[in-house]
Amino acid sequence: VCRPLPDAVTVATIVARLGGEARGDATARIERLATLASADAGALGFLASRRHADAAGRSRASAMIVSPELAGAAPPGATLIVTPDPYLYYARVAQWFETLVARRRTAGIHPTASVAGSARLGEGVAIGPGAVVDEGATIGAGCDIGSGCYVGADTVVGESSRLHHNVTVYHGCTLGRRVIVHSGTVIGADGFGFAPSPQGWVKIAQLGGVTIGDDVEVGANCAIDRGALDDTVVGDGCKIDNLVQIAHNVRIGAGTAIAGCVGIAGSAVIGGRCMIGGGAGVLGHLEICDGVTISAMSLVTRSIREPGFYTGVFPLVPNDDWERIAASLKRLPSLRQRLRSMQHDRLGKDLP
Amino acid sequence: VCRPLPDAVTVATIVARLGGEARGDATARIERLATLASADAGALGFLASRRHADAAGRSRASAMIVSPELAGAAPPGATLIVTPDPYLYYARVAQWFETLVARRRTAGIHPTASVAGSARLGEGVAIGPGAVVDEGATIGAGCDIGSGCYVGADTVVGESSRLHHNVTVYHGCTLGRRVIVHSGTVIGADGFGFAPSPQGWVKIAQLGGVTIGDDVEVGANCAIDRGALDDTVVGDGCKIDNLVQIAHNVRIGAGTAIAGCVGIAGSAVIGGRCMIGGGAGVLGHLEICDGVTISAMSLVTRSIREPGFYTGVFPLVPNDDWERIAASLKRLPSLRQRLRSMQHDRLGKDLP
Amino acid sequence: VCRPLPDAVTVATIVARLGGEARGDATARIERLATLASADAGALGFLASRRHADAAGRSRASAMIVSPELAGAAPPGATLIVTPDPYLYYARVAQWFETLVARRRTAGIHPTASVAGSARLGEGVAIGPGAVVDEGATIGAGCDIGSGCYVGADTVVGESSRLHHNVTVYHGCTLGRRVIVHSGTVIGADGFGFAPSPQGWVKIAQLGGVTIGDDVEVGANCAIDRGALDDTVVGDGCKIDNLVQIAHNVRIGAGTAIAGCVGIAGSAVIGGRCMIGGGAGVLGHLEICDGVTISAMSLVTRSIREPGFYTGVFPLVPNDDWERIAASLKRLPSLRQRLRSMQHDRLGKDLP
Repeated sequence: VCRPLPDAVTVATIVARLGGEARGDATARIERLATLASADAGALGFLASRRHADAAGRSRASAMIVSPELAGAAPPGATLIVTPDPYLYYARVAQWFETLVARRRTAGIHPTASVAGSARLGEGVAIGPGAVVDEGATIGAGCDIGSGCYVGADTVVGESSRLHHNVTVYHGCTLGRRVIVHSGTVIGADGFGFAPSPQGWVKIAQLGGVTIGDDVEVGANCAIDRGALDDTVVGDGCKIDNLVQIAHNVRIGAGTAIAGCVGIAGSAVIGGRCMIGGGAGVLGHLEICDGVTISAMSLVTRSIREPGFYTGVFPLVPNDDWERIAASLKRLPSLRQRLRSMQHDRLGKDLP
Repeated sequence: VCRPLPDAVTVATIVARLGGEARGDATARIERLATLASADAGALGFLASRRHADAAGRSRASAMIVSPELAGAAPPGATLIVTPDPYLYYARVAQWFETLVARRRTAGIHPTASVAGSARLGEGVAIGPGAVVDEGATIGAGCDIGSGCYVGADTVVGESSRLHHNVTVYHGCTLGRRVIVHSGTVIGADGFGFAPSPQGWVKIAQLGGVTIGDDVEVGANCAIDRGALDDTVVGDGCKIDNLVQIAHNVRIGAGTAIAGCVGIAGSAVIGGRCMIGGGAGVLGHLEICDGVTISAMSLVTRSIREPGFYTGVFPLVPNDDWERIAASLKRLPSLRQRLRSMQHDRLGKDLP
Repeated sequence: VCRPLPDAVTVATIVARLGGEARGDATARIERLATLASADAGALGFLASRRHADAAGRSRASAMIVSPELAGAAPPGATLIVTPDPYLYYARVAQWFETLVARRRTAGIHPTASVAGSARLGEGVAIGPGAVVDEGATIGAGCDIGSGCYVGADTVVGESSRLHHNVTVYHGCTLGRRVIVHSGTVIGADGFGFAPSPQGWVKIAQLGGVTIGDDVEVGANCAIDRGALDDTVVGDGCKIDNLVQIAHNVRIGAGTAIAGCVGIAGSAVIGGRCMIGGGAGVLGHLEICDGVTISAMSLVTRSIREPGFYTGVFPLVPNDDWERIAASLKRLPSLRQRLRSMQHDRLGKDLP
């Protein structure tokens, strides 16, 4: 649960810091953010969409972040913070409140960490218990390297980045500034490349690296492979959820968001500001232009040249219905043929 | 392979401990459990379904766990343990035998572990090499924290729980009693929340935690994210396989089983005693009632209010057939239209 | 990026070592491999398919690996290495070049590692920082056990194998020779087995192990579960990409390649020399014969007895089209019925 602030703040203090217009009692004391449903006295809620207007009206929050258009949906007693984009305002408040409740960060190298003599560490770096920084690696100022992390030889981590715990970054990779990598993620493992031979698969040594831009966040237990020759590239500001697989030589443009369990095959090129739904797949060696949205669990099997919203997923139905649909689906080409032939008989000409 | 017991036990001893009725030579000595096919002298097999009656008849097991109805399917020489639920009986035997073959557990804190001064450890806790227990964390009596694990600040692990190796639990999470978490799993990483802004995605600090009930088992390399404000909740007795993604604010009822590679998107609410097949997906902000079964690799795109068995997966066919079906599928709306129009011509009225 | 060799080599040296025929200036100096597009002076490129002939012609590589048939596609100035299989030749060069650029490996046990007294270590073994080798484990000669790895009690790792960082191998597993396991992968966690009971799920202790053959490579963040009674088996020469789930009791034949994000359910038996596309699934308790190819994100729902190429995936379309297709799909059985009935009316007999 969201823990309360050690010292409550007033709405006036919030507005002074983050902007917006206070309406009502600006001395109302706020000790936590809360959802509309779980908010009660001392809580600050937010109303980001008209869909939640009813829940807002029933909420017991002491204060509420609202847009001018939806200000009327708030309960009568609540103090309002009126702002054009309540969701973004909530994001700013949450970032601030997190700094107020978080335990204090301790810089320095834990005695159980192993930092190579040739590694370069910027000012104020924290290296957690058991973490390893290998030969020639560079850790920028203000970075947090969590317990159990491995940072490979000659890898560069830009300033103010954070690797949570048990993160692995292989040798020769580059992470930008303010990058966040969650636990269990592996960056720079070998791409999946093998040449067939009469003696079986022959490994193709993966000589490239991984380049990750500034302000990228990578979730837990992802895998971003190193390139075969050139680098695998994740552009600035990309946001990647958990359990995402990014194969070797993939290139992803700036600001693209990838939900959990997505797999992107080798050498795919994905544009900027795309959104890839959870569990979706992208085949290798194809291109997706900027601004494409892919639905959850859809497979991109060909290049996409037009921005837009694409889907390919079998609709969910009761299993008995599915049995019938699946059986019919297998007959679909013959159904189509029969319909064409009936129409030909009637019209004396072929339809498509 | 299943290693043999250091000292064989008789069928009589098994029945005295776990119940059931011995038929035949109760002095038969058992040194291991085995599948029907690989069993030979000294092995105890089990027959859990009529489908395996033939294999049971051919089995060379010294003894066999059977139901009264299938007792006749066992080979003539075998000693029988007759019980209404052979599979459950097998589970009980396997749990017991595991304690007989397992190496002895050693309580205590390994000298390479890092346990914060403010952490509270119950009696008989074992903390493995390199494990980290952070400030204010509580580890209940009898817990095993494997090598390389990280237990975050203020996190609580209930008694008799086990974190295998290289498990990460972030700060402020709560795990119940007798919880098992397999290696590589990450609990409490940040949920995937970002507000769009003209400057790109703005991170929404994830201020909630994760609450995991009693008797939950979580497989390897899963990710269960912390809530944005409220906790992500996994109910008592849930069983979660490997590589499962559970996003922020998800709530799962008691006793639900989730197979490998499933992804559950943010704020989904899943009932109790559900079964989610491998690779399935659940979109965010929807509800699934108690007692729902979802087929493997099916995507739940809307709330499910009725218990039952649901499927949505494209049937597998030879690739050439698939090419034809996929092409026809894209024409399906026009086929439907043409059929409607032919029927209208014949019947003078519209059909659905 | 692919780092340059510390000392350039001539084409003549390459050909002397790896075979092939040099055409043109065999004294040309090579300092790195490169893709056709990014190659320039000092780079060795390769042309593995006629599809890339144009790119080859435009390439600025100093030398190029080509087949006799495509030798004419190389740019006029480049030195050629002519060989029947350029891709395989490239693999050999890359393996060699990797040894030239890699940092020197250091054998020995890092002082922060924990190696049990009863563990057996072969000659020249390297055990990284914080790694744990538990009681009775055997690590073959020349193995590299990366930082943060856990090798369980009585587990055997064959000679010349490499576990990258933060790999977990539970007790009682066997890995062959020259096995590579990438970071974050978990081998030997409990299979997902529970018996239903009136008191909820009862865990079935997983008493088997995992057996992995020689020359197997396993990518990052995979999970290969131990068997319930018999071992889970991955055959010689199998290649497994990242984030792959292999459930308990699965058996995979030699030389099969499995792309990222695949899930294979319990007790499935997969033949040799199969290729399973990314994100595909295989249901439990079925068999796939040798030489089967499964398309990405397709689900194998029944045994496959014939080698071949199988697909089952909903084609990707613009979302508006998908809405129409999905709606029609649900009516497909009734469409089929209506078409049959119209044909019956016309023909006086039933069609299938």
